[in-house]
Amino acid sequence: MRTVVLNTGTELLLGDVQEAHLAFIACEIFPLGLRVNEQRTVPDSALIGTALMELFPRAEILFVTGGLGPTSDDITRDIVAGLLGLHLQQDAAVLALLKRRLKTRGIKWVSSIARQADVPAGAQILPNKSGSAPGLYLRSNINPAVISPHLFLLPGPPRELQPMFRDSVMSILRSIVPSRSIERRIYKIACVGESIVEEAIGAKVLAIPGVELGYCARPGEVDVRTVGAADPVVRADKVIRGELGLSIFSTGDETLEEVLVKLLARRKETIALAESCTGGLLAHRLTNVPGSSEVFLADCVVYANQAKIDLLDLDPKLIEQHGAVSERVARAMAEGARTKARSTYALSTTGIAGPSGGSPEKPVGTVYIGLAAPDETVVKSLFFPSDRETFKQLVAQAAFELLRRKLIG
Amino acid sequence: MRTVVLNTGTELLLGDVQEAHLAFIACEIFPLGLRVNEQRTVPDSALIGTALMELFPRAEILFVTGGLGPTSDDITRDIVAGLLGLHLQQDAAVLALLKRRLKTRGIKWVSSIARQADVPAGAQILPNKSGSAPGLYLRSNINPAVISPHLFLLPGPPRELQPMFRDSVMSILRSIVPSRSIERRIYKIACVGESIVEEAIGAKVLAIPGVELGYCARPGEVDVRTVGAADPVVRADKVIRGELGLSIFSTGDETLEEVLVKLLARRKETIALAESCTGGLLAHRLTNVPGSSEVFLADCVVYANQAKIDLLDLDPKLIEQHGAVSERVARAMAEGARTKARSTYALSTTGIAGPSGGSPEKPVGTVYIGLAAPDETVVKSLFFPSDRETFKQLVAQAAFELLRRKLIG
Repeated sequence: MRTVVLNTGTELLLGDVQEAHLAFIACEIFPLGLRVNEQRTVPDSALIGTALMELFPRAEILFVTGGLGPTSDDITRDIVAGLLGLHLQQDAAVLALLKRRLKTRGIKWVSSIARQADVPAGAQILPNKSGSAPGLYLRSNINPAVISPHLFLLPGPPRELQPMFRDSVMSILRSIVPSRSIERRIYKIACVGESIVEEAIGAKVLAIPGVELGYCARPGEVDVRTVGAADPVVRADKVIRGELGLSIFSTGDETLEEVLVKLLARRKETIALAESCTGGLLAHRLTNVPGSSEVFLADCVVYANQAKIDLLDLDPKLIEQHGAVSERVARAMAEGARTKARSTYALSTTGIAGPSGGSPEKPVGTVYIGLAAPDETVVKSLFFPSDRETFKQLVAQAAFELLRRKLIG
Repeated sequence: MRTVVLNTGTELLLGDVQEAHLAFIACEIFPLGLRVNEQRTVPDSALIGTALMELFPRAEILFVTGGLGPTSDDITRDIVAGLLGLHLQQDAAVLALLKRRLKTRGIKWVSSIARQADVPAGAQILPNKSGSAPGLYLRSNINPAVISPHLFLLPGPPRELQPMFRDSVMSILRSIVPSRSIERRIYKIACVGESIVEEAIGAKVLAIPGVELGYCARPGEVDVRTVGAADPVVRADKVIRGELGLSIFSTGDETLEEVLVKLLARRKETIALAESCTGGLLAHRLTNVPGSSEVFLADCVVYANQAKIDLLDLDPKLIEQHGAVSERVARAMAEGARTKARSTYALSTTGIAGPSGGSPEKPVGTVYIGLAAPDETVVKSLFFPSDRETFKQLVAQAAFELLRRKLIG
């Protein structure tokens, strides 16, 4: 079924807000065999009506986001009712809910709020558990005199749209989309270049008829995706697992740090960190994982040389003789953090993030990553010449992957 | 001049990649008095041609992104040449550049790469310093037999498009857009609710004719934006500065952490951190700022109680008597970090990020933020019931704002 997303919102076209609905909706509807065929953004103006008139005949399912709130620029509801020749009726249940919501939050009632309870005749209300304006579903050709697609009017803020989509929209979609067996698999790989991954699996997977193969690359990570009917996707699965094996850290939604927290928790082991060039990013990523407090003990972010000495008991001579960015200092940092925090493992990072601080022998991008474990300490030397934030992400991926490889043996 | 952005790319409609060009282009062209009037995304297919035919008559400036690379799904160049009745000619200079680029990177030449040197007759080449495919500019009605807008074909990856836009596209735009005096101002405010900001300035600013007022809210921050002719924008500026005063931490592109690094560097002072519930986020944000190594010394991310004792010399009785999430522990952490790192200031955070770990007396969202300074230590108690990552951001904003207020007196 032809599916279209229409985003309304002047703030999106001014660049004040980054559009986030398209990627979310596309991922949600994919398991139903639906794809977004086209997407548009229009301002909060009569152009919403122009776009809808163009899209009605070419869409079978149309998601419209934004413009359902109480203010004067929230006009989606009125425009849709007008185009479809439907009267707006105040819905008593929605009105009561709005009044209750405001009361519990101690917000004063103003008459414009009531506009959110206006519902086109025959529309189904989609409850909004994270905001005030409800969503609306208008079935295909709801007014027999007007050709129209299945129409979903959804709120603009992602924190309102996303739960509404999962709680209400998906079940309606399941009832209107003919069921179709489509499989989608994902394979996440850290610290291997996209071209190397493609060389390993590309030709072999594409030789299987009926499989679509896609890649999504971000700093230090490649996600391989396959799409198709069950049988060819399973055949591709064998090829991909055969070629990439232990390089695959997840075949689901998990991040690399989530995988690490799970692996450590299962083994009842703990981790500490000593970060220099990553400046807290490793700890930030680990502590984004709920339950990380079970396995993550401490991080010494030792940006200054004196801090390396004071907090990790580093021998000052090591820094004098080898420099702060060196194999020896990375080793001592990891071992120092492991001793201080009494953890099973410790990771350390020391490098030159740039833009300044480089030298001919140690240019911007130089980095040493240490891993102290009960049986040994290893240090990896890498080179990531790039901008500051990408450098930090690349080093974090490399450090986490070093630990993951150790944990899986 | 009516301006339209057309994004091409199946990966955008599958949700594999988050669209990022619209917001970037919108912000760049705003000072020229241009706004994006409409935006569309279409897959890598003949639909690119359908969309272009619809958009040619309604756009005066049209930015097309993606589909300029070497692979079989890169078809933008061919479709545009076809629609405009222009022959594609291999450009010798572009070809030589492509060959040189591959040679220095040690990549093997394959014949498909040469497609990127095909240029529609009369098009201007926009150099790509971050990738291989050049951009193309085709002036309005380049073929007098076909009505067409000023057409910019730009590469899909943001790291290629963005420098090309600033280096080449902007100067062409300046030559074709009639100059118009439009002002845009921004006022960034941390840790004040959007509704409170609106109450303070909304009615007064909107009473000035010719000013548009906008807000952009994110966790712990509100950006106020004004747009209009110079005179009313200056009048609004007086109102906004008068009402919000020291709450405004920046009137430019600066982040709160950039402001802090600048303030500290100017005063030749230093900062250390002791993070529990923010888990390294404060350090990560500070170390994203180039030059932060001048002012940021160290961070003890003390997630486990034992780490608080071992790394910050905390008296274990404090934790026993008051709990790790308490005013007393926040104070001792800040003072401990300041002593250990020998810094001018130290910030500490201890709280309950959730989803687990809450209790009736100390529910999820409870947090204490400490600031140790040469003259005094202060602790702020706050409550941010929200998801884990938002909680961390809100606490980071509050901690940074606490320090900023101290620094500006």
